[in-house]
Amino acid sequence: MRNLKVVIAYDGTNYHGFQIQDNAITVQEKVQVALKELLKQEARIISASRTDSGVHARGHVFNFKLDSSIPTENLAIALNTVLPADIVALSAEEVAEDFHARYFAKGKKYSYQIYNDDFQLPFFRNYSYHIKDKLNLSAMRQAAKYLIGEHDFSSFRAAGCNAKTTIREIYQIKLKKQDCLVKIEVEGSGFLYNMVRIISGTLIEIGLAKKEVSEIKDILLAKDRLKAGFTAPAKGLFLEKVYY
Amino acid sequence: MRNLKVVIAYDGTNYHGFQIQDNAITVQEKVQVALKELLKQEARIISASRTDSGVHARGHVFNFKLDSSIPTENLAIALNTVLPADIVALSAEEVAEDFHARYFAKGKKYSYQIYNDDFQLPFFRNYSYHIKDKLNLSAMRQAAKYLIGEHDFSSFRAAGCNAKTTIREIYQIKLKKQDCLVKIEVEGSGFLYNMVRIISGTLIEIGLAKKEVSEIKDILLAKDRLKAGFTAPAKGLFLEKVYY
Repeated sequence: MRNLKVVIAYDGTNYHGFQIQDNAITVQEKVQVALKELLKQEARIISASRTDSGVHARGHVFNFKLDSSIPTENLAIALNTVLPADIVALSAEEVAEDFHARYFAKGKKYSYQIYNDDFQLPFFRNYSYHIKDKLNLSAMRQAAKYLIGEHDFSSFRAAGCNAKTTIREIYQIKLKKQDCLVKIEVEGSGFLYNMVRIISGTLIEIGLAKKEVSEIKDILLAKDRLKAGFTAPAKGLFLEKVYY
Repeated sequence: MRNLKVVIAYDGTNYHGFQIQDNAITVQEKVQVALKELLKQEARIISASRTDSGVHARGHVFNFKLDSSIPTENLAIALNTVLPADIVALSAEEVAEDFHARYFAKGKKYSYQIYNDDFQLPFFRNYSYHIKDKLNLSAMRQAAKYLIGEHDFSSFRAAGCNAKTTIREIYQIKLKKQDCLVKIEVEGSGFLYNMVRIISGTLIEIGLAKKEVSEIKDILLAKDRLKAGFTAPAKGLFLEKVYY
């Protein structure tokens, strides 16, 4: 019985998030169907993360136990022959028996993509949030600094989040610009429900001068979701990496 | 009566090319329907170019005559409210009465996108051709040099091309690489049917050492389509710009 860790990328446009649910097509369901087709056995997969409807991944991780002779080094390639075109297995490796994709995760990296120009090229329509007015990246970078470190992120969690603690640590936030694409990269120990999308929405409001840079401190201290900015749309969000 | 020049971008994935035809959905049809909805009159559009099924554009140009009071500066924005999400008007401007998008074109720039890595991220599946084996870009660049200038490009035109002359001038070919994406940019006076896709396929075969760099000269001189490489798939091709 091997314990296998698999990294996948997916275009979340046509899925109701990762986690399996009744009456909705999810990434997990497609992965489990593909694994069953390939391995001729049910695979119970343990995911590092849930993602919302429309959210994408470049490095989502799951693990599952496998009692089959298929060589580990061929698994990703074999899996891609049975997965739909919008889900791609990037790697598969054998890990320790007790490895658990969620419990063992030490951190995650997300990115949020914004298309900042008058007109958004159609190739980006499912992968970025379109903002016509010019964003002040320098103001956004200044504000982002206040969020680095260990804080109570109550102001940045959606209603419905039932995490036991609202303390999280953000390791770093980087703002990058390439052509019209602005990318907010957030790395941290873990994230509350919708945390990256609310951080992105708040930084966007600062970049549009709807909020002052200095307000970010008050928002954090208020521990009140209503003080923060809007929840930026799911389609701009990418789960980049899970750290172990 | 104004003569208007419009630049559009489109994701060609779901279209049977630009030019209108019976029994198939085309970009031109969608644009004409949108113009009619917006302007309440039929618009006969003149396009700079045809494109094949699945080919994309970042800067396709057409013109049309308009007898309406809608301000030119608002036209692109207004048009986007009635166009489908995969077609975007980027600009509209008034041009001379005799301007003709096809006859006045002095040159065009195309790019061909290749995803060169073991696994292709799903976000690129409709916008690049996936090649797992590492391409030798240096060999491809050397070969590309032979194509620069005025030549008889008979070896690089598809059957069914009924151009009067097969002489064309290529101004420049650039090969760029960013992360896993290799871009072949080709600028020229004009192009024969499938010319950029056959050039790309030939350069790819050279990059994979299926053909020698030196063969490109013989291919060009042979004036025989069978000597050149394969026609690279449509989904990697982008009409970047039309020069006037």
